[in-house]
Amino acid sequence: MRMSHMMFKTQKRVAAEAELPSHQLILRAGLARRLASGIYTLTPLAVRAIRRIETIIREEINAIGGQEALLPIVQPAELWQESGRYDAIGSDLARLNDRAGHPMILAMTHEEAVTDLARSVVESYRQLPQMVYQIQSKFRDEPRPRGGLVRLREFLMKDAYSFHTSQQDLDAYYEQVVEAYLAIFRRLELPVLVVEADTGMMGGKTAHEFMLLADGGEDTLIVCPTGDYAANQEIAVARKRLRAHGTADEALREVYTPGATTIAALCEGLSCAEEDTLKSVFYTSGDELILALIRGDLEVSEVKLRNLLGQDVRTLSKEEAAAFGLVAGYAGPVGLAAQARIIVDDSVAEAGNLISGANRVDYHLAGVTYGRDYSADAVGDIAVATPGMACVHCGTPLEERRGIEAANTFKLGTRYSESMNARYLDEQGVLQPLIMGCYGLGITRALACILEQHHDADGIIWPRSVAPFTHHLVVVGTDKEVCHAAETIYAALGERETLYDDRALSAGVKLKDADLLGMPLRITVSARSLAAGGAELRLLATSQMRMASLEDTTSVARELAAHRADESAGV
Amino acid sequence: MRMSHMMFKTQKRVAAEAELPSHQLILRAGLARRLASGIYTLTPLAVRAIRRIETIIREEINAIGGQEALLPIVQPAELWQESGRYDAIGSDLARLNDRAGHPMILAMTHEEAVTDLARSVVESYRQLPQMVYQIQSKFRDEPRPRGGLVRLREFLMKDAYSFHTSQQDLDAYYEQVVEAYLAIFRRLELPVLVVEADTGMMGGKTAHEFMLLADGGEDTLIVCPTGDYAANQEIAVARKRLRAHGTADEALREVYTPGATTIAALCEGLSCAEEDTLKSVFYTSGDELILALIRGDLEVSEVKLRNLLGQDVRTLSKEEAAAFGLVAGYAGPVGLAAQARIIVDDSVAEAGNLISGANRVDYHLAGVTYGRDYSADAVGDIAVATPGMACVHCGTPLEERRGIEAANTFKLGTRYSESMNARYLDEQGVLQPLIMGCYGLGITRALACILEQHHDADGIIWPRSVAPFTHHLVVVGTDKEVCHAAETIYAALGERETLYDDRALSAGVKLKDADLLGMPLRITVSARSLAAGGAELRLLATSQMRMASLEDTTSVARELAAHRADESAGV
Repeated sequence: MRMSHMMFKTQKRVAAEAELPSHQLILRAGLARRLASGIYTLTPLAVRAIRRIETIIREEINAIGGQEALLPIVQPAELWQESGRYDAIGSDLARLNDRAGHPMILAMTHEEAVTDLARSVVESYRQLPQMVYQIQSKFRDEPRPRGGLVRLREFLMKDAYSFHTSQQDLDAYYEQVVEAYLAIFRRLELPVLVVEADTGMMGGKTAHEFMLLADGGEDTLIVCPTGDYAANQEIAVARKRLRAHGTADEALREVYTPGATTIAALCEGLSCAEEDTLKSVFYTSGDELILALIRGDLEVSEVKLRNLLGQDVRTLSKEEAAAFGLVAGYAGPVGLAAQARIIVDDSVAEAGNLISGANRVDYHLAGVTYGRDYSADAVGDIAVATPGMACVHCGTPLEERRGIEAANTFKLGTRYSESMNARYLDEQGVLQPLIMGCYGLGITRALACILEQHHDADGIIWPRSVAPFTHHLVVVGTDKEVCHAAETIYAALGERETLYDDRALSAGVKLKDADLLGMPLRITVSARSLAAGGAELRLLATSQMRMASLEDTTSVARELAAHRADESAGV
Repeated sequence: MRMSHMMFKTQKRVAAEAELPSHQLILRAGLARRLASGIYTLTPLAVRAIRRIETIIREEINAIGGQEALLPIVQPAELWQESGRYDAIGSDLARLNDRAGHPMILAMTHEEAVTDLARSVVESYRQLPQMVYQIQSKFRDEPRPRGGLVRLREFLMKDAYSFHTSQQDLDAYYEQVVEAYLAIFRRLELPVLVVEADTGMMGGKTAHEFMLLADGGEDTLIVCPTGDYAANQEIAVARKRLRAHGTADEALREVYTPGATTIAALCEGLSCAEEDTLKSVFYTSGDELILALIRGDLEVSEVKLRNLLGQDVRTLSKEEAAAFGLVAGYAGPVGLAAQARIIVDDSVAEAGNLISGANRVDYHLAGVTYGRDYSADAVGDIAVATPGMACVHCGTPLEERRGIEAANTFKLGTRYSESMNARYLDEQGVLQPLIMGCYGLGITRALACILEQHHDADGIIWPRSVAPFTHHLVVVGTDKEVCHAAETIYAALGERETLYDDRALSAGVKLKDADLLGMPLRITVSARSLAAGGAELRLLATSQMRMASLEDTTSVARELAAHRADESAGV
């Protein structure tokens, strides 16, 4: 393609909010143009890369039996009412009324639509397992779109859904999907880490995320350096330091603690350790008051709390706390059972004689012991795992990483088939709910991840597998002989795989743009190169250079590009 | 692909509203499932055909220099306010507020978004011409979705936009697009007729539609059987019979016409011809009353009237007519100039001495003559062209056809670049608005057109170019040797191009489904075929049959399929 007539423009200065390298590169190289917050126009260069990413995904998903379908973006509210998500999901789900006043939604994911398809088609165990996928634009009204193409409101996604007769069959197929995903990311040259993850609004019991490690990533990961554990911090587990319970239970007694409204102040005032205190954190769910209790040296994980409760929670505002009659800075569990649902972290259940708020200004209680002084509605692990805590498998101190979520997989089980009545007849002729898995891979985000991973200070360095063009042909100067040579090479290489910079611009500008755009193989034709015998070829990823005569340029280009492809295959 | 595990189900009975053959076939063959009015889930068989249609479109549009981009579906209202279409388009344009309360729309077409892209990129005449296209889902909130995939609310479309420095350059490129479209439709085996069309809400001066002739088509076409004229009836022109003006103007006189509130009753009562009468048709636009006058033997074309006025109009309700003080059945132009904007068909302007309503119950006026008794704000052709009227080019009586609009092309001119300030510097360094064209081709509709065109009573007969699979392999019976033979052939043909009916169903059901699904080449393996020497091959389109030994099946299949492909190329 001739750059002189390409819908494309590089940009020198980019918006200050573009912090991620991929965000900067998308703007600098003119791959996308922002139309609204989280909504971008993708230009032809970006779409060429996108189509290649899609082809790789289709090949790998077809190889594990995926059938490509296409589910609607605009869907009737009733469908989401059947699953219960119409009410369960907040403003992330965009809603509109159609011309007849009928409530509709813009699909951000397609469990409901695909379950509707499956229940209309699947009648017998003989038809199972099956896997359906699609590649399509989705809209999720994110509160905080960011990072250019990393977190969009409108984004391209491959979403897949599998249907099984048993949990074992789902488990086995899930592993196949994980392998297919790893194959896709190898071909995209994205080294990803598979981590355990929250199931979130999808439901189900098990989920994994495929994380590209990146400093600017918005997810925090907790990993064991030995490689035996990796999880999103939202749900990561870790061994907690044990704290001695004390030989005998102390008596409950009031302590005067003026001004000690924080754990730090309390510890300083009483000369005790954080782990000797009991932290009370209040949440609400609907009208209900929820008190989460955890040792003072730990933090409550809202995601873990939500999963333990099986319902959504949010932190209490100051106004709400006052309305419930809570004593700010001095709240505690003793005497609060009638008023709040009490959830206790396992670290607290096993350690007695803690110091908690006395529900009275300027007073704490010492000797507070679970089971004697208060009881709980549920006990479990609700603590945030942090670096330095010990791996539950091997005891090695855990580390923290930042990552960008490139894909996710969920074992949904019967979450949707039960609520939407999607059943098949088993071998005994008994109706059973379909057992489901779902698997997402963001395509616009994959593009962002590729840029995040493959660039230097000058610009992009496209992996060969997804580069918009293999060759970038730069003609330097306007000399007739040089231009003629460039046109000859362009014709020989073919316009399909060649980005041809035929613009009437200076060599400096053109070479800088070539650095920025980062096609794998650069071919430069100038008076100097002709004098030296032909064209100069340079493999961007390795800086390997070769001169070739005009006649040999195509074959040398092919040789270099093939070399590069071999290398990529080994990544 | 094995049918036993395919997300697919045929249907014996289809909904009564499925009138079009394509609509029935989509439901019977399980190609799509209705989720809501005008919103369908496309199943894997349909998506395979869709992807092939898209590939053909990409190849032909790339060949004329098209650059594939991807523009957002959800767009801010401001963008459409810039062009003026946010207010100009009614409920067809779906609107929603995002979580921040910002008004957004779902794009039904992308002139605004692509003009926004072009104004950010195109600075100089040196960058022109250019053509950008995309393939994407759109949403248009149609009041009356119909015909299965023919008129959807959510549909797949290829939309393209070109940018030029002059009308001549647009004109020349427009011809290239027309040729590319014709090449696409040849490859889809859709014989289309190119007709002149209304520019509608797109604006601009010239438009064409590519029509598949079909009895169930919702568009009426007016065509000259000699082939020198074809147009959508909305804007078709025709020679009107001349009516003698009379040697001298008669005096204006009142005639008593009790009960003659229609042209027919008037003609009967006065023993005159329809063409001797003057028909008054009232419209409104905003608060304005518009009176369209036409000879009694002709009908007013609302589209032509709207185009002549350059503004939208709608017919007056009875209540509105009464509110304007019009005398129902007896309204006429004489004395109404102060109250209504008067538009006169050219047939009226050239014929005097007509009979019109007297604006008084039970009375008409005779001798009514344009220019003497009333004047007009505009004169032009606002008549509906009907079969039997004469071709404006050759005088041959015109004929009527029904058609399905498969594609359209528009010369937009500066409709969007002026309002959205999309300008480039010309050779003299002067800022000029971009001159634009736009070109739409519905992909889900193309699928419907293919089914409409290629079927018989038993089912679909896919053109080779877009068939979901080339081969349909049917194994009859459960005999071990037969199944083994079928599996061998399946492996040899390759699963990519073979739909393999391995279901444990009767021969009758499987062959009936094969007839319904209509893949180009059927291969049947049964005890009988094995006894006769191997497999039975049948080319669906020609019913050509061949027997082949198991070893030769693949090569014979290839030969037959190639033969078919050759034939298609000649269509």
